Amino acid sequence: MKTQKQIDIKSYKADGFIEKYQELIRTTVIPYQYNVLCDRADGAEKSHVMQNFINAGKAVRGEDVGDGFYGMVFQDSDAAKWIEAAAYSLNVKPDSQLEKTVDEFIEIIKNAQDTDGYLNTYFTIKDKDKRWTNLLEGHELYCSGHMMEAAVAYYEATGKDVLLNVMLKNAEHIYEHFITNKNEGYPGHPEVELALLKMYRATKNKHCLELAEHFINVRGVDIHFYEKEQKKRDWSVWGNNPVNYEYQQSNAPVRELSDARGHAVRAVYLYTAMADLASRTDDKELYNACVRLWDSITKRQMYITGGIGSTVHGEAFSVDFDLPSDTAYAETCASIGLMFFASRMLENEVRGEYGDVMERAFYNTVLAGMQLDGKRFFYVNPLEIIPGISGVSPTHRHDLTTRPGWYACACCPPNVARTITSIGKYAYGENEETAFCHLFAQGEIAFENGVKFVCETEYPYGFTIKYSIISGGKMAVRMPSWSKVFTLTANGNALEYDVKDGYAYFEVSDGDLIEIKLDDSAKFISASRKIPALSGKVAVTRGPLVYCFEGVDNGGDVISIDLNTNSKIDILDTCDKLNGAVRLKIEAFKVCEADSLYSEITSEIEKFIAIAVPYYTWGNRGENQMRVWMEKE
Amino acid sequence: MKTQKQIDIKSYKADGFIEKYQELIRTTVIPYQYNVLCDRADGAEKSHVMQNFINAGKAVRGEDVGDGFYGMVFQDSDAAKWIEAAAYSLNVKPDSQLEKTVDEFIEIIKNAQDTDGYLNTYFTIKDKDKRWTNLLEGHELYCSGHMMEAAVAYYEATGKDVLLNVMLKNAEHIYEHFITNKNEGYPGHPEVELALLKMYRATKNKHCLELAEHFINVRGVDIHFYEKEQKKRDWSVWGNNPVNYEYQQSNAPVRELSDARGHAVRAVYLYTAMADLASRTDDKELYNACVRLWDSITKRQMYITGGIGSTVHGEAFSVDFDLPSDTAYAETCASIGLMFFASRMLENEVRGEYGDVMERAFYNTVLAGMQLDGKRFFYVNPLEIIPGISGVSPTHRHDLTTRPGWYACACCPPNVARTITSIGKYAYGENEETAFCHLFAQGEIAFENGVKFVCETEYPYGFTIKYSIISGGKMAVRMPSWSKVFTLTANGNALEYDVKDGYAYFEVSDGDLIEIKLDDSAKFISASRKIPALSGKVAVTRGPLVYCFEGVDNGGDVISIDLNTNSKIDILDTCDKLNGAVRLKIEAFKVCEADSLYSEITSEIEKFIAIAVPYYTWGNRGENQMRVWMEKE
Repeated sequence: MKTQKQIDIKSYKADGFIEKYQELIRTTVIPYQYNVLCDRADGAEKSHVMQNFINAGKAVRGEDVGDGFYGMVFQDSDAAKWIEAAAYSLNVKPDSQLEKTVDEFIEIIKNAQDTDGYLNTYFTIKDKDKRWTNLLEGHELYCSGHMMEAAVAYYEATGKDVLLNVMLKNAEHIYEHFITNKNEGYPGHPEVELALLKMYRATKNKHCLELAEHFINVRGVDIHFYEKEQKKRDWSVWGNNPVNYEYQQSNAPVRELSDARGHAVRAVYLYTAMADLASRTDDKELYNACVRLWDSITKRQMYITGGIGSTVHGEAFSVDFDLPSDTAYAETCASIGLMFFASRMLENEVRGEYGDVMERAFYNTVLAGMQLDGKRFFYVNPLEIIPGISGVSPTHRHDLTTRPGWYACACCPPNVARTITSIGKYAYGENEETAFCHLFAQGEIAFENGVKFVCETEYPYGFTIKYSIISGGKMAVRMPSWSKVFTLTANGNALEYDVKDGYAYFEVSDGDLIEIKLDDSAKFISASRKIPALSGKVAVTRGPLVYCFEGVDNGGDVISIDLNTNSKIDILDTCDKLNGAVRLKIEAFKVCEADSLYSEITSEIEKFIAIAVPYYTWGNRGENQMRVWMEKE
Repeated sequence: MKTQKQIDIKSYKADGFIEKYQELIRTTVIPYQYNVLCDRADGAEKSHVMQNFINAGKAVRGEDVGDGFYGMVFQDSDAAKWIEAAAYSLNVKPDSQLEKTVDEFIEIIKNAQDTDGYLNTYFTIKDKDKRWTNLLEGHELYCSGHMMEAAVAYYEATGKDVLLNVMLKNAEHIYEHFITNKNEGYPGHPEVELALLKMYRATKNKHCLELAEHFINVRGVDIHFYEKEQKKRDWSVWGNNPVNYEYQQSNAPVRELSDARGHAVRAVYLYTAMADLASRTDDKELYNACVRLWDSITKRQMYITGGIGSTVHGEAFSVDFDLPSDTAYAETCASIGLMFFASRMLENEVRGEYGDVMERAFYNTVLAGMQLDGKRFFYVNPLEIIPGISGVSPTHRHDLTTRPGWYACACCPPNVARTITSIGKYAYGENEETAFCHLFAQGEIAFENGVKFVCETEYPYGFTIKYSIISGGKMAVRMPSWSKVFTLTANGNALEYDVKDGYAYFEVSDGDLIEIKLDDSAKFISASRKIPALSGKVAVTRGPLVYCFEGVDNGGDVISIDLNTNSKIDILDTCDKLNGAVRLKIEAFKVCEADSLYSEITSEIEKFIAIAVPYYTWGNRGENQMRVWMEKE
């Protein structure tokens, strides 16, 4: 039984900060990404996604398409994530031309489905006989999962069920293979589990629930499955070593896991499905495993920006407290997955920490993943960039100084697009009684339980949140842990409320004006001394935003700056070049350059005013130094 | 024309700190390493070195030895470095049993030489036809080089020329291949160049000088040589990619180099030969290249410990100012090579900076390479160890928390042994007029130019150095850059001296007692702010010794300690468990543990007395945290 659940996508119409981002996705990102999929975007790497589906359709009808596949084994998922984002975007604003484009694309995808329900362009074009023989690397279930998410999103946005029926047929095919015909195995890259649960929610098809449960339950029970699978085949995609148990989350049955390890995106996609299933089936053992994994991530392995998976080696979690700023991996998609996980944890228990982490990941790493103009994307999100070392040194090659365009492995850009366009699902939740506000997302929200209000705020730059109640009832609003002080008023008078687990619970009536004031001060933050890379360092935050220091604001050089943590942090201005982001100014010292590598300490420092910008806006003004964790005097 | 040159190995008899180390090598390391070479040392990895030579001898005489080779392609060099160390050790103390052992080993090596002078067990046993077809990886010239160094050392120590003649014959074989028969190419791993110059010094054989010059001059002229070579062969040792021009020092002719890059040991071995050749042939262009490379290393890429080659990727130099403490590679052999380079630079110009760096490398990284009991060795020398991360995290796997025993790739242990036993060559130099003291090495020194004295000092723990002059003349003593103040007296009175380029020049008479007092205070050191990893951090040094902080002295945890740099550093004690090393105590603060990963900064600190030990002694008391660069309050 879910404590509360995500709202329907149609329940929320954004305004303000969120609306601007959704508009950027709608007007820039989605059209650009469609052009990429069709191989007609300037400067983008070849995608071939559309052509793969067209060719797969021909192959299904027996035509010889020869060498007709191009791209990664999971290339299909780019199409799925784009359709999902487009579906949410249609909810943001109806667009008959976009809807027509999606409908046509869906027809092409439908045609690429084999008569038995199988759908995957890589195997359909290249070698039908290799289907289901390489779960470790083949990404068939991963691609199906993303297309299922797209199908559900498009159905919910438009009521059209063509793709939903394609994916139900595909789910039936998978069911037959793994359940009816008892073929062993589980997905190399978790994703289909969380998607099957969405399919179940949308269609109530029991096979979808049963399949999701099956994949979660058998995972890691036979830890040698992938080794046996490898022995049976004479081919490989990348030569993945099947004994990397932690990398592929096959090291133990999921209910026994305690440490988040391995490929970070795979991990959080799996944990998301586990948390979703746990709340749906009242599986306390499963939820307890989720809590342990949550703690492992958020109490021992998460960057202050909500970045996770600190090492480039396997794009993975490292070990506890290994959180280097300069060589960080912290993939955008991993933080998106962390938001998914947090949202499903909230469906088990309404606890402020879940919302806090979701907010941290969204306003920092996820938004940092995209250039402010929506045209370039970070896959990797370091907390320190030093041109000359970052992107160049053998240990820093993955940490780029500016956002590149579309990647060959283009998982992050469409993932950002679908997350921003569907942010309402993460911001708001409900049960029969209560409307939940997990994030402070501007706009109008109409809950199925009857509560309806308009949320007005300058968040994340203003810290007064007003709820104009259209239709009253019970509400629960997260009081962020970063705001130790807050006030709640109703129509100018003190509001009666209870706080439980980080949420304020209260009742509202039609016409009420609820006003919440959160702490608007910027703060100096230190890290646990268990993190060796951050000992003695200090970061600056305001509200949910982590700030950083860029060379362009600080005379080119941020390495030499020591912040004066005894001073007050003031607002400098709102920066037009950063879409109105609030810049902060902080008293600091600049250390004078010594004439040798190592010398006796001196007190040669000069006073300096350091300027900080929100982390998510970094790298928008050319290549320069960037640092989140600063020295202090 | 050399400004001054290394003294003869026989000129120096050590005492005090140096003698104790030489005794440890003589009584523990050399016997143990011999047992390793003969595969009879408990707990060591299989070596097979002796057996390889025996089998190669059989192969030369036409016997079928089948699969008779074991080990790395450069396995022969372990024998060479051991003989070289043994030779120097015979100079430390005559030992007829050891000399007999070496003589017998040399007979076995002589028997492994082919009739045409070729000597290499890998190719002789495995496939004679592959000789000289893979200079990139084959290490034939590298192994020859080490055996030449051994031959010269044994000849100088004992006057016996069996091995010297074997290696002259080998040099002639190489000469014929590369000079007479004009085969293209240059050594994949530089080493033979510096060895040929030693051969030339010992024998005056002109072909040795010519070959050394040849290899130095052709290197990097055809940067595509290794690619062409690869195309001609159908086999590989490790699959090295011949386009890694910087890795293999083939990116440009050596006289055009400005940045030290690539595999650090290869680099400094090459630069050593370049500097030696430059001083021998008065090649200013070559010396200028050496100066640029020296500056590149010591002004932009060297750890405070004299460690070089900061990245595990290719055991290589990274880019300027990329000097992380925790993921450092800093191979012991690279710092040994840096000492070689410094010593040859001193033969071009007597400049204090060369001696300063040689001293820094020796007393810190080189000595740290060996356990205090002489039985275990570090290959990699990080400046920070955190058990749980170091040796475990994917980016820290090479940074071990304690010294392992003998390695499969055993380059460092015998390299340490030969360096310590021949330290007199680095400590003292001479020309016709003057006796040079580059390091403060205790003992009796008789220069060829007639100067003779006894050096008494507690160095590196005492900073008074007494020279009791037995036979007078001109002297030049390096005044270390870390000692901004110093006094020199003769027989209790002020001594007249000139200081030039970091050296004090003066004259002494028979019976004089010269006393030098250097700065004995411990100091707080900061790093250039160009090194991002060290901004705001502080290290502690005393004399040539860099100190570090280990958990065992500091309540288990050094990450939480902030040093009070406004306090004085005092001597705590001499520590028996660390062979009498002087420990320091420093006022500090311990930061109380926060209850979450990130929280508002607080002033919850307690006063604490931090204890520091010399870096070279770390890791001798079990696994624990270790840090050189500390936080400060």
